[in-house]
Amino acid sequence: MARAIVFLTDFGLGDEFVGTCHGVIARRTPGAPVIDLSHGVPPGDVLRGALLLRDSIPYVPDDAVLLGVVDPGVGGSRIPVAVRTAGGRMLVGPDNGLLSLAWKALGGVAQAVRIEADDVVLRPTSRTFHGRDVFAPAAAHLAGGGAVSELGPSVSPGSLVAVEIPRAEVAPGRVSACVLSVDRFGNVALAVTRDDLRAAGLDASVVVEVRTPGRVARATPGSTFGDVEPGQLVVLVDSAGWVAVGRNGGSAADLLAAAPGATVQLREPSRTSPDVARDSAGI
Amino acid sequence: MARAIVFLTDFGLGDEFVGTCHGVIARRTPGAPVIDLSHGVPPGDVLRGALLLRDSIPYVPDDAVLLGVVDPGVGGSRIPVAVRTAGGRMLVGPDNGLLSLAWKALGGVAQAVRIEADDVVLRPTSRTFHGRDVFAPAAAHLAGGGAVSELGPSVSPGSLVAVEIPRAEVAPGRVSACVLSVDRFGNVALAVTRDDLRAAGLDASVVVEVRTPGRVARATPGSTFGDVEPGQLVVLVDSAGWVAVGRNGGSAADLLAAAPGATVQLREPSRTSPDVARDSAGI
Amino acid sequence: MARAIVFLTDFGLGDEFVGTCHGVIARRTPGAPVIDLSHGVPPGDVLRGALLLRDSIPYVPDDAVLLGVVDPGVGGSRIPVAVRTAGGRMLVGPDNGLLSLAWKALGGVAQAVRIEADDVVLRPTSRTFHGRDVFAPAAAHLAGGGAVSELGPSVSPGSLVAVEIPRAEVAPGRVSACVLSVDRFGNVALAVTRDDLRAAGLDASVVVEVRTPGRVARATPGSTFGDVEPGQLVVLVDSAGWVAVGRNGGSAADLLAAAPGATVQLREPSRTSPDVARDSAGI
Repeated sequence: MARAIVFLTDFGLGDEFVGTCHGVIARRTPGAPVIDLSHGVPPGDVLRGALLLRDSIPYVPDDAVLLGVVDPGVGGSRIPVAVRTAGGRMLVGPDNGLLSLAWKALGGVAQAVRIEADDVVLRPTSRTFHGRDVFAPAAAHLAGGGAVSELGPSVSPGSLVAVEIPRAEVAPGRVSACVLSVDRFGNVALAVTRDDLRAAGLDASVVVEVRTPGRVARATPGSTFGDVEPGQLVVLVDSAGWVAVGRNGGSAADLLAAAPGATVQLREPSRTSPDVARDSAGI
Repeated sequence: MARAIVFLTDFGLGDEFVGTCHGVIARRTPGAPVIDLSHGVPPGDVLRGALLLRDSIPYVPDDAVLLGVVDPGVGGSRIPVAVRTAGGRMLVGPDNGLLSLAWKALGGVAQAVRIEADDVVLRPTSRTFHGRDVFAPAAAHLAGGGAVSELGPSVSPGSLVAVEIPRAEVAPGRVSACVLSVDRFGNVALAVTRDDLRAAGLDASVVVEVRTPGRVARATPGSTFGDVEPGQLVVLVDSAGWVAVGRNGGSAADLLAAAPGATVQLREPSRTSPDVARDSAGI
Repeated sequence: MARAIVFLTDFGLGDEFVGTCHGVIARRTPGAPVIDLSHGVPPGDVLRGALLLRDSIPYVPDDAVLLGVVDPGVGGSRIPVAVRTAGGRMLVGPDNGLLSLAWKALGGVAQAVRIEADDVVLRPTSRTFHGRDVFAPAAAHLAGGGAVSELGPSVSPGSLVAVEIPRAEVAPGRVSACVLSVDRFGNVALAVTRDDLRAAGLDASVVVEVRTPGRVARATPGSTFGDVEPGQLVVLVDSAGWVAVGRNGGSAADLLAAAPGATVQLREPSRTSPDVARDSAGI
């Protein structure tokens, strides 16, 4: 049986882009299972895609090919790559850092090639849709049992682009970090780990103040939404391991006016911090 | 071959939640087909999810495992359950009523267990994402031929939570009921059956008045959109068996300002009821 | 193994319509792979659906059944059809032109039938959801090895409805055409071919003026987004072969206030055409 392909893009599902890639995979390797991890990455958000690919690893088949296409530089100078990790895992995508958190988590790059083999890449090759013409056929080649080396010439593993996860700024009683994502339920995931909270001395707090550029509110540490009263904010470690602000029965993002990329501060509450959200003068 | 899994959630497709569950299923039971019934249930709308699971039964494989995750109380006191019906059908989800309309339609519960087996549930178990850690692996276990009894200790079938379908209020010449759903095309499905219409004496009407909290309009009974002129409203029995208000070539929901949960009244037209929608003082 | 089904609709993914059709297919032909080409066709946009079906042909398996449901006249006088092309390719959908660009591209219709066989069509048959009751089972029948002739009585190929692709209006130094689509990234595809550009003498331009009903802006011919500076507009031939206006790192549609169906003009820049978008008095 063919290996599964774990497929992540910023294509959305409103257009035909994802479906066309599925078609290309089915043409080349009929029966290869495709697991659509997400196609809702915000357009061009390479870091978000890189985190999702990495975080998926424990939850997808151990031999699955990871196929990522978040590619704002499509058709430009960034190269299309296929990577084999020390443990034999294979990844396909643009060399813009999208795959880097995954291959780091998988033990590093053992082999990398530039995808350009004539019997793999579709011709003529669009300069705006490498998902269809370059990446999907390369992933299908690997899912069908093909070798990385057959996809094109070697690239030095050391030359591959990597992304860095933004780090929280930690001070006594205070952690500042950017919003990594806001999900459908309005949960606001921050680039903050449990260790960051501990380093700031906030891990044992009974209540925490949350400040966004426009709002300030109190939140209660907990481990699920029902740990606080309906409508109240909870600070928890989410299912991907990030510290997140949620709201029981509502959207924390709406209450906090928080969007991906914004800076959020968690801190010991001041005497004047409100029970519910109110406008603030920012952080 | 593995059984199919019919998968319904309120996760949406913008995040990675659905894809991650697919990955977990593929890890545990490779090749198990997953039929994504819908992931567009409004967040936390247990009744809507319960209706969709029930209504899917004639249209999915007879041995498919039903996997539902609309779970506003995730990680709280509600328990995760797997259910076997009198006819041998298996269902997995939170014990909050989501599965109840389906198991009632399938002849009732023969066996129920609390899902907690160590070789099924993923460890560590997130308290906010039981879809990934509890429900998806349990459904995959069943799809792969595992037994319900292997998932955890028995639960009394009589203790399971059930939801009630809201009933229409029927009077001579008048039916009031809540909006069950609004679909992409703007069709407004009401908690009204053909029998309710008949009981109100509206089944043979030539024209019906539709009143929402903010609008009033005339609609013509029919059986498809093209039965009325373009732009006009039609009252029909929809493909799930509910009385619905549609509009030929447009959105009835927009015209009527109707959203899920709102109360709508169908009644004999008064002398003053308008041909087209206009503002009303409510019902 | 069953043939693949390439599935395109305007159902969206917020409701259960697509999932229900998947269930029906799995009931009738277990294991038939379904490739969801797109369910994001704008409601009722038959031309858009027809183009997408046609353009998918090189990118899906050569024996795949094409199943299209964009069907504003559902349950009315238009008939449900299955078509076999000269090359043996099979297509299923409403006879409203949706399939016509695909069968023209595949060499024309060799055989057509009206779908009505009692052992295929689900009974009772909803008048509002032929996707579930008529088209999905017919496609599953064909994917499982069934013949077109088994689906119902013959229809004259010459009687089938066809759509026309809107043509660009070409004059020296000027091309006017409608917007075919706007994708997630804000790329604006026009009903303009590379030949149209050449006929207008715009193919060798260094800069082109783009006029929409409300805006005017300069764009640079190129072949991918990175060929222009960030924020600038580029005119390119997109992955489906249409001339499109894109924007490096942003949405051309937002900048140009362009939506599907609007008329856009590409022309030699006038002395007064602005570097960036500004309001215009229209075309």
